Amino acid sequence: MYQALKQRVLAANLALPKYGLVTFTWGNVSEIDRERGVIAIKPSGVEYDDMKVDDIVVIDLDGNRVEGSLNPSSDTDTHVELYKAFPEIGGIVHTHSRSATIWAQAGIDIPSLGTTHADYFYGDIPCTRKLTKAEIAGEYERNTGLVIVEEFNQRNIKPMSIPSVIVAGHAPFSWGKDGHDAVHNAVVLEEISAMALATRSLNSGIKIQPELSDKHYLRKHGENAYYGQR
Amino acid sequence: MYQALKQRVLAANLALPKYGLVTFTWGNVSEIDRERGVIAIKPSGVEYDDMKVDDIVVIDLDGNRVEGSLNPSSDTDTHVELYKAFPEIGGIVHTHSRSATIWAQAGIDIPSLGTTHADYFYGDIPCTRKLTKAEIAGEYERNTGLVIVEEFNQRNIKPMSIPSVIVAGHAPFSWGKDGHDAVHNAVVLEEISAMALATRSLNSGIKIQPELSDKHYLRKHGENAYYGQR
Amino acid sequence: MYQALKQRVLAANLALPKYGLVTFTWGNVSEIDRERGVIAIKPSGVEYDDMKVDDIVVIDLDGNRVEGSLNPSSDTDTHVELYKAFPEIGGIVHTHSRSATIWAQAGIDIPSLGTTHADYFYGDIPCTRKLTKAEIAGEYERNTGLVIVEEFNQRNIKPMSIPSVIVAGHAPFSWGKDGHDAVHNAVVLEEISAMALATRSLNSGIKIQPELSDKHYLRKHGENAYYGQR
Amino acid sequence: MYQALKQRVLAANLALPKYGLVTFTWGNVSEIDRERGVIAIKPSGVEYDDMKVDDIVVIDLDGNRVEGSLNPSSDTDTHVELYKAFPEIGGIVHTHSRSATIWAQAGIDIPSLGTTHADYFYGDIPCTRKLTKAEIAGEYERNTGLVIVEEFNQRNIKPMSIPSVIVAGHAPFSWGKDGHDAVHNAVVLEEISAMALATRSLNSGIKIQPELSDKHYLRKHGENAYYGQR
Repeated sequence: MYQALKQRVLAANLALPKYGLVTFTWGNVSEIDRERGVIAIKPSGVEYDDMKVDDIVVIDLDGNRVEGSLNPSSDTDTHVELYKAFPEIGGIVHTHSRSATIWAQAGIDIPSLGTTHADYFYGDIPCTRKLTKAEIAGEYERNTGLVIVEEFNQRNIKPMSIPSVIVAGHAPFSWGKDGHDAVHNAVVLEEISAMALATRSLNSGIKIQPELSDKHYLRKHGENAYYGQR
Repeated sequence: MYQALKQRVLAANLALPKYGLVTFTWGNVSEIDRERGVIAIKPSGVEYDDMKVDDIVVIDLDGNRVEGSLNPSSDTDTHVELYKAFPEIGGIVHTHSRSATIWAQAGIDIPSLGTTHADYFYGDIPCTRKLTKAEIAGEYERNTGLVIVEEFNQRNIKPMSIPSVIVAGHAPFSWGKDGHDAVHNAVVLEEISAMALATRSLNSGIKIQPELSDKHYLRKHGENAYYGQR
Repeated sequence: MYQALKQRVLAANLALPKYGLVTFTWGNVSEIDRERGVIAIKPSGVEYDDMKVDDIVVIDLDGNRVEGSLNPSSDTDTHVELYKAFPEIGGIVHTHSRSATIWAQAGIDIPSLGTTHADYFYGDIPCTRKLTKAEIAGEYERNTGLVIVEEFNQRNIKPMSIPSVIVAGHAPFSWGKDGHDAVHNAVVLEEISAMALATRSLNSGIKIQPELSDKHYLRKHGENAYYGQR
Repeated sequence: MYQALKQRVLAANLALPKYGLVTFTWGNVSEIDRERGVIAIKPSGVEYDDMKVDDIVVIDLDGNRVEGSLNPSSDTDTHVELYKAFPEIGGIVHTHSRSATIWAQAGIDIPSLGTTHADYFYGDIPCTRKLTKAEIAGEYERNTGLVIVEEFNQRNIKPMSIPSVIVAGHAPFSWGKDGHDAVHNAVVLEEISAMALATRSLNSGIKIQPELSDKHYLRKHGENAYYGQR
């Protein structure tokens, strides 16, 4: 019944090892069909090499399984909260990709230091606050989503203008208009994270010029964009 | 007579170059059959490309060869001591994988800095003390095992809760319920070692929140685990 | 009509992913036919996997399209300005290759620290000044080219003696006698950028001996060169 | 006439790109036949992909070409001086492999920091002094060899106990009992160079215990060695 959605989600999940973003089963991609009110997501703990389209789990927005026999990713509740709070997003990816995870572990925003960053992210990538003991002891995965939403609301960031976040002590989440686009953003996030690490070691105080950030972001996004075949 | 055991040990050894954990012949995997009291292990100094199932050496717990014509790994005595002291482990791997070896050479515990670490290791990865001159001059490989056991005993660590160690000035050993599981842990060890190096360069004082370490370790291990297809 | 030129430009563009210099569609190579007054260049935002010879766009030196139906690279105006100012160059490549981009983001010249550098570049690789707000708001891509030319003129550098530049806050451009040669120089630039990063972290004040730079550059270039099969 | 020697030298040269030690044509391997007084070496500036056995150049110890039509490597005179001064070596390799070159550019000996190093090199890898202006202006490649020999003589190092050197501001040379063995040592040199870089950044004062260096070197080399299938 959700075959096309599941096929897209399978393909997006298989892109994670292809781009070197995951070790073993670490990482998961989901995509939402907002008209039908369902989310397709990777099953928990299944190897990428063995994954088939019917392993993809379909749930509703209350987290009830509506298709598939496997357990959905243990991070499903985080995905659900993001889809509820950010109506403009259509796909989400979670990885422990090395360089983005390093910034998450350090608990520091990934600074915008050049046009590679600005082409995709309109400002620094936020690092969330730490979850409280109560948030960790309670509905941990759901609270992870809520803390991400809180960060974007407090900083007044539109989710599609900075389509990634790092969770303090944990790892990144990225999103996009669908699962494929979310993975694309996760690849870029990893590359700019690696660049930012070394850039700061060479020049600890450097920042991008704000007008250069504007220029590069806006030549690729929004109504006056002129990059690509429009 | 030990064909299935040797096949598993061969496969686990061949996984080392596949995961980029070894250069040339550096590294070895063993697995124990506790009922029959034998250990199968890689032969010393044989290239991975040429290794066949009958090259795998089977020894008893006194180190006597019971099957195979080649010399066992020069690190065999270290494996034997670990099997004797840690009855809950079933497989051991030794590599000189780059990032874990860097921490071993620096002589510093690998700190738990995030959930990637906490998903597999319930605390910092211990670095042993240096061996004494007498321990090095004597039964060096056996003493390496004894120093590892001493470290786990003194720190009161259960071997399966932190299934890896780094030996000061040398390199890592990992273990698991069998050879395959030991290699899995060695791959994770290498990844978290690389992440920890760069995390500390960004934020030298950072540590994981203890409650986050608990949460991630316990959602994958123990009676209340809920990760994967249980 | 420009089939051979387009074939060479396609091949040079396809060399970028082969050498690991690009992520997705980031990067572009062009080549000029000075007799006919045309430039062939990669189309904007097209995937390397799908690129065909007829996707390559041919323009004149005023930027008018003379062959092809796709939009040329958004960086076309930068290429045009470099071809106009540097008559001795025949091909240009722009990438966001990781290590060279790190130096660009840091806003620091890439110092000549050894013979690997000196074999190809006769001195430090210049980093341009930042573009002004007006330059960014105006004809940004053309102004990027003009700022590169300004840097080479002010420092009195001959373009073929240091066939690369890094643009502050942005990324590198390299050039050569044709598109293939420009890509060759971009590969070298990336390698020496990575080496320089770590060299400076080991020894912050080190520089190459000037006479060693002379020796290595001049044994490969100019009338007394003796490297290769001459 | 020297077909077997040339075949071995071709194979050893082709191992350089296989092990990731070279970019383009950077690097060369030679092997000596001391009975016949000839050296076979890579031709200068020829691509590895295109290299054939008859491209390998055979010279005598005065540098005269005795077989082959191409020019020998521009580093030939360095090889010749090493063969003359070190009668126990049978093969030499020169690369610009990244991490070893970083130490050469920094002008710092590669310190022995662990057993990975000690398994192959009995002490720190020496960095030569800088060549003087006169040495660079004169017979540069021959003088490079002489400066290496000077370094080993002054420090009283036996060439086969530390079969590598880094030349200040330049790059490494490695050697061994034949060309294949020299390449093997070059691979190890690159790995320990990378490890040493990060080890020193974690713990700037660390050194290997001398007795551990003795133990590991001597369990693989010399009359009491017990590593491998002896």
